[in-house]
Amino acid sequence: METTSDILVIGGGPAGIVSAITAKKYYPQKSVLLLKSIEHGCIPCGIPYMISSLKDPDENKLGNAPLEKNGINVIAEKAIKIDRKNKKVFTENDHIYNYEKLILAAGSSPILPPIQGIDKKGVYAIYKDMIYLKECIKNIKKSKSVLIIGGGFIGVEFADEISKIKGIKVYLIERSENILNNSFDVEFSELVEQKLSSNDVQIIKNVTVQEILGNQKVETALLSDKQKIKTDCVILGMGARSNTQLAVDSGLNLDQAKGIWADEYMRTTDPNIFAVGDCVGKRDFFTHRYASVMLASTAAAEARIAGANLYELKVLRENKGTIAVYSTYIDGLVLGSAGLTEKTAKKEGFEVLIGKAEGINKHPATLPQACNIKIKLIFSRKSGILLGGQIAGGITCAEAINFISIAVQKRMTAEELEALQIATHPHLTSSPIMYPIIIAAQEVSKKL
Amino acid sequence: METTSDILVIGGGPAGIVSAITAKKYYPQKSVLLLKSIEHGCIPCGIPYMISSLKDPDENKLGNAPLEKNGINVIAEKAIKIDRKNKKVFTENDHIYNYEKLILAAGSSPILPPIQGIDKKGVYAIYKDMIYLKECIKNIKKSKSVLIIGGGFIGVEFADEISKIKGIKVYLIERSENILNNSFDVEFSELVEQKLSSNDVQIIKNVTVQEILGNQKVETALLSDKQKIKTDCVILGMGARSNTQLAVDSGLNLDQAKGIWADEYMRTTDPNIFAVGDCVGKRDFFTHRYASVMLASTAAAEARIAGANLYELKVLRENKGTIAVYSTYIDGLVLGSAGLTEKTAKKEGFEVLIGKAEGINKHPATLPQACNIKIKLIFSRKSGILLGGQIAGGITCAEAINFISIAVQKRMTAEELEALQIATHPHLTSSPIMYPIIIAAQEVSKKL
Repeated sequence: METTSDILVIGGGPAGIVSAITAKKYYPQKSVLLLKSIEHGCIPCGIPYMISSLKDPDENKLGNAPLEKNGINVIAEKAIKIDRKNKKVFTENDHIYNYEKLILAAGSSPILPPIQGIDKKGVYAIYKDMIYLKECIKNIKKSKSVLIIGGGFIGVEFADEISKIKGIKVYLIERSENILNNSFDVEFSELVEQKLSSNDVQIIKNVTVQEILGNQKVETALLSDKQKIKTDCVILGMGARSNTQLAVDSGLNLDQAKGIWADEYMRTTDPNIFAVGDCVGKRDFFTHRYASVMLASTAAAEARIAGANLYELKVLRENKGTIAVYSTYIDGLVLGSAGLTEKTAKKEGFEVLIGKAEGINKHPATLPQACNIKIKLIFSRKSGILLGGQIAGGITCAEAINFISIAVQKRMTAEELEALQIATHPHLTSSPIMYPIIIAAQEVSKKL
Repeated sequence: METTSDILVIGGGPAGIVSAITAKKYYPQKSVLLLKSIEHGCIPCGIPYMISSLKDPDENKLGNAPLEKNGINVIAEKAIKIDRKNKKVFTENDHIYNYEKLILAAGSSPILPPIQGIDKKGVYAIYKDMIYLKECIKNIKKSKSVLIIGGGFIGVEFADEISKIKGIKVYLIERSENILNNSFDVEFSELVEQKLSSNDVQIIKNVTVQEILGNQKVETALLSDKQKIKTDCVILGMGARSNTQLAVDSGLNLDQAKGIWADEYMRTTDPNIFAVGDCVGKRDFFTHRYASVMLASTAAAEARIAGANLYELKVLRENKGTIAVYSTYIDGLVLGSAGLTEKTAKKEGFEVLIGKAEGINKHPATLPQACNIKIKLIFSRKSGILLGGQIAGGITCAEAINFISIAVQKRMTAEELEALQIATHPHLTSSPIMYPIIIAAQEVSKKL
């Protein structure tokens, strides 16, 4: 069977969906077809919440409706080969898809560390496949003890969700001195550690898992400090790597960080093939070195660039590189991070000035649901330019970190932030007198 | 009695407090004294919430603690005259205060419209005086019918708070076709109108109050459409005007909008006198015409500029003018507005492109407490630059409007917003695929 479409997208995750929809918006006369390798996909960042927050894991499914509504055809078939010369894609069903423009949105796969016993029953990497995940969650819920390897976002969010189920002991294993170590400085990591510990998650730091023991099924994890932990279920949360096999086999270039190489407009070395999302290499905002930030929001931003620019460069991009901007939610506590932490800034060689502030997120502080808010801003000492920020507090911190993110992306200075015009309201924000982002900026501005 | 201090601040509201604290931060060796005319002040934007949200109105008091903690002396005396030549301020107690640098933060007073009967008992303008307000609230709570004149923020927030008290009928009188007409386009004003109406607030639009009738105490309001409304209590929410008497008497200049004239660094025509907050004139961000935006957050931003720059220009200001950025909270519904509305943009003569988006503030949409979010962005058609935005939804909209505000202040384009890097999270924001601010920007970007 041979099918022809003007625009062909490989990948059914956020990068694939957004690039297909954007392409259709910008080029409505072109036909768009999306090939996805997993028939029943799911919203990637929603995976932890399939355990407790959602009543039914199926609520997290990523359906075809937004694509079909926009006139995009969707076929669940795995692409296995690209013939760039003849502009054809072959699938495992021996079907052939002809294209004018191809978008690779092949995503990433979880890293499987070389731990002995990792292939035992009861050990789960987090694949974005609904059927697989439902089986994984069924097994988690039957467990008496779950051990999570890796204290990054996935590990921390899984730990929080599993801790809400009565009768399951949760262990979180982190190789470094703090969880969320890549995205937060220690004083913020500690807030999450306190929250998880208060919900009986046992966090074990500065260790690795050396071996997973058991008779076919996992029974015990042996840690690098020789501790043995009885467990029925092991979750791997150790990051992901780009899916690049298709690209490599067809002769496209990779970058130094082992993502597909693409230019500012997401064009690969083949002008008719674009690459977006987790499969493509990123550059760091501050150093322009290759970086491996894998975020659905970054993927969506790239996908909008690619979709608009397929046939001609319509949307000009001032690609300053990728800042890592995250938020997470741990049992009511919201944390956000954008740009460099103090630790990473110093490691990169920046001379920094730090501004800190704490306050209450309402004014007066006796209003219902008031809670504490904590801010840290990292500035370059010489230029006064904002390098990054971290925030912890209530639910409004989710957009406050985007406020900080935009300030980083626009290279704002402490002085500019100090005089910034913002909206404040008793029920919604700290008082205009004590608005923490501005107070933290002022702490630095007066030292400049 | 004669007292000398290096820096003298007149005014105990947010502008006075922030300028005093900032002055002390930047010039720790200087003595700072603050004179306030009202002994028991209150947080201005918290006034409506003294009615229902706060258990005790006293929770909204604006105490001296933040000042005293920073080593600033506070005296409750009303300044009545400035002798600029000899750098002395006289108070109504016949005390004399000598200064090196003087900051006027004299605030604003409610506009008292020329309505016959406005002096009757039971008619209240909103003065920022705790003793007065407690009396006013006591009277509101005893009323069977409260009539609020003016559908701006104060009127709307008072209506919402009073509607929570059983047995009080609330009328909201608005002279134009929609409430919140200065800050929102009709489709957003209507959301607030629906919310208030569903809580039994009766909104009467396109009318004015012609006369307040009653025997000493208010009994009836006569509207311009000849309707008569029985009422025990009338609240005036018709805006405020700058307190400039002290400045005028001492020979300082006013601007065309009748605020005290000040330069980019909040210096009046006397180099030793600064003016900040509601008493000082503002320029509009887009047209640089004189404007009368009176917001505690704007006042605080000006106060930080003045406080830092008293003796030498330390904090450079790129004063692009004042954008109006507001948020409000009506019975769980949050609304925000920044910059120009579609209506005001067209009135100013801009050719505009509008981007709209709606979505759910969590993903998947079945997560607990998910609610709808609605966005409208107004761009200049030719340049693609963001002129303003409005948002309605849950509590995270409070910081999302600051996100939009910063984008207006940094003159971002639809293209830039389309490719912006943001954090998204299932529990906290819309999905990265459907993040409404970006979708609304994209709607415009593809038309440019």
